[in-house]
Amino acid sequence: MIKYEVKLLEGIERKEIEEKRSGAAALIEKMRGDEFGGWVDLPENYDKEEFAKIKAAAERIREQAEILVCIGIGGSYLGHRALIEALGGERGRTKILFAGNSLSARELRKVIAEVQGKDFAINVISKSGTTTEPAIAFRVFKKLLIEKYGEDEAAKRIYATTDKSKGALHDEAVDKGYEMFVVPDNIGGRYSVLTAVGLLAIAVAGIDIDKLMAGAKKEMEALRVDGGAAAEYAATRNVLLEKGYDIEILANFEPSFGQFNEWWKQLFGESEGKDGKGIFPASVIDSTDLHSLGQYIQDGRRSLFETFVETEEKLTGVLVPEMEGDIDGLAYLEGREIDEINKLANLATREAHFVGGVSVGRVIMLRIDEEAIGALIYFFEMSCALSGLMLGVNPFNQPGVEEYKTKMFERLGKPGYGEKSKPEDRSVE
Amino acid sequence: MIKYEVKLLEGIERKEIEEKRSGAAALIEKMRGDEFGGWVDLPENYDKEEFAKIKAAAERIREQAEILVCIGIGGSYLGHRALIEALGGERGRTKILFAGNSLSARELRKVIAEVQGKDFAINVISKSGTTTEPAIAFRVFKKLLIEKYGEDEAAKRIYATTDKSKGALHDEAVDKGYEMFVVPDNIGGRYSVLTAVGLLAIAVAGIDIDKLMAGAKKEMEALRVDGGAAAEYAATRNVLLEKGYDIEILANFEPSFGQFNEWWKQLFGESEGKDGKGIFPASVIDSTDLHSLGQYIQDGRRSLFETFVETEEKLTGVLVPEMEGDIDGLAYLEGREIDEINKLANLATREAHFVGGVSVGRVIMLRIDEEAIGALIYFFEMSCALSGLMLGVNPFNQPGVEEYKTKMFERLGKPGYGEKSKPEDRSVE
Repeated sequence: MIKYEVKLLEGIERKEIEEKRSGAAALIEKMRGDEFGGWVDLPENYDKEEFAKIKAAAERIREQAEILVCIGIGGSYLGHRALIEALGGERGRTKILFAGNSLSARELRKVIAEVQGKDFAINVISKSGTTTEPAIAFRVFKKLLIEKYGEDEAAKRIYATTDKSKGALHDEAVDKGYEMFVVPDNIGGRYSVLTAVGLLAIAVAGIDIDKLMAGAKKEMEALRVDGGAAAEYAATRNVLLEKGYDIEILANFEPSFGQFNEWWKQLFGESEGKDGKGIFPASVIDSTDLHSLGQYIQDGRRSLFETFVETEEKLTGVLVPEMEGDIDGLAYLEGREIDEINKLANLATREAHFVGGVSVGRVIMLRIDEEAIGALIYFFEMSCALSGLMLGVNPFNQPGVEEYKTKMFERLGKPGYGEKSKPEDRSVE
Repeated sequence: MIKYEVKLLEGIERKEIEEKRSGAAALIEKMRGDEFGGWVDLPENYDKEEFAKIKAAAERIREQAEILVCIGIGGSYLGHRALIEALGGERGRTKILFAGNSLSARELRKVIAEVQGKDFAINVISKSGTTTEPAIAFRVFKKLLIEKYGEDEAAKRIYATTDKSKGALHDEAVDKGYEMFVVPDNIGGRYSVLTAVGLLAIAVAGIDIDKLMAGAKKEMEALRVDGGAAAEYAATRNVLLEKGYDIEILANFEPSFGQFNEWWKQLFGESEGKDGKGIFPASVIDSTDLHSLGQYIQDGRRSLFETFVETEEKLTGVLVPEMEGDIDGLAYLEGREIDEINKLANLATREAHFVGGVSVGRVIMLRIDEEAIGALIYFFEMSCALSGLMLGVNPFNQPGVEEYKTKMFERLGKPGYGEKSKPEDRSVE
């Protein structure tokens, strides 16, 4: 499903990559045995009963709500947001909004304004139910929901995706009768988009989740034996890191992939950025960023490499209009497909950056549709896990995320965390 | 107006920073004399007559259009988009949409769909009028405008911001009678947001451009003698680069600053990323990205430093709702301002990252309003120009941006650029 090609600068040898990727089969076995390795076989092992429940709930939400407010942070929102946007946005009447992914009162106020006078429902996604950002947002939107519909009807409009047997949100959902979906124990947040965590909102957006899973399954089968293209990509990036290329830029010529880039940065940044190690993940959307970071990529410090996500699918019917005369110098493009021009700009950019001293990879999808995106998600998950293991880190934990939380709880005066929340203490820093 | 503070890791000495910033006054003189130094004194030297024309045109556009399509790429769109979003979005009935900043047919189709059945106008921004991305988009939306209103009425709805005396767009505007505004000769794209390039759309969005310029002017005066806080910031980042910290992350706790981060990345990336030099500019929006790149920043490769953009303004009236019981563990936050929690999270994050081995700077605005943002824009422009000159590059050119264009023109078969556009030639790469 997904192809990977790379054009390497001189001095980076294929045999180093071959050697590094030769261990991939063993690493896949290792991750399959990991307590957080549940995503590896997910595309065939997923809970079919819950899957049917997700589709039914999505149908109901599309009937009952003009807006679905998805409450979650990190892996509990990036994946579905990325996937919905990459596939062109919501296809039915129900718009998906996101809340609880920051502590900004300004942002919260905007989403509150958007649900005013609209029928809405909530999908709250939190393993524990006590993570500060989503827990605050859940209080806010639950209150609005109850004010609008009353307790009973509100409960029918809250969908809780949480731990299967314990925790604050689980207990509340059981108590109030919210429909529940499971955040699996054996799949970490950033690998969870193809579980209920991501699938409910994706299905509400009108995206065919059967095809999504079918695409992921095909990719899983393609990578199963030795990691295939994912192992090639993972090995390549580790060899590049060893040679001092320590920034990777994911590039895409479709603005609708902006949130996909964010998902990718979380996946790789959180999986590999630990123990003083890791490639720094960055991203661009071209051609807009060719008039921005493009200058740096072409000509700045030579410590980066670039990976383009591309599709072979041709979009037709959007042409450069004809015009009398040739005042803007575009006559030579008249009547040509703009998508074709975009693809040639993509090709030209790869060529230009390579000449400028950048190793350039390509991750190629056949099309931009459910099956292809399902495959792409799985490809990057497998690539990331392999890459982290090749690097010698645990790609499934995120110890550093606790640090800001601990200091924040101290500052907020959370019981058990000291008492530093008073404004005068700000001078401590 | 703008303060800058920094907490440096051990081993980075203040005296190195003092030494580097001591040359700032001379560098400001140098940039004032540069052919692209027009932005330095702009906040007091700007063309008052054109400024009044911009305000009048904005008033007219707000009457005639539900949508203003801003067509431009790079510096001809990033600044106004950033500023409008940072100040909370459009304040009147006229929505601002952006086109011509990529070659994506998918994206173009979306904007075309949005103007259907709506009254709209165009602000096309291009010095030459022949840059491929905006020139194609201008053809597309001009055609739609003429189909909707006829030639004469369409001409009254096209506002051309372009060269003052020559070029394709200039000549067309004169010929057709479009209202015209000037892209100054002595100010490069990424320093141009406070000229007609940015101001027309900003005024249409209902933002007070008098206050914006007043804020920029105050900051200009504060920095005039020796670069002030901007010189401190510029010197600090250069010293950090010399010590091997070669990635800077701009961090903001307000999601509405997402596009501001993009503007900042263009400003610094394009100004400094050349001759094999430059700090790699990256950005995050917290707290969402604390559950993403946050792990890397806390605990990954120690080659980065972080600069937070913060405000002292308190937003009040958005509180953590009270709830019976304490199932979610948030009782200790009940009734507290969410903005206060956000600011404490910001503070905690700075503390956590510093402990993790990251030098942490703060760029502080008094408020988030027109005056403060005007000052912030000027602060970063001056910081960037000083920083580039301290680094030993020309912060006002962008030679690398031509590379992809040349290769693209070859691929597209543009007259005078060879003939490589045929699909079979793709194998060359």
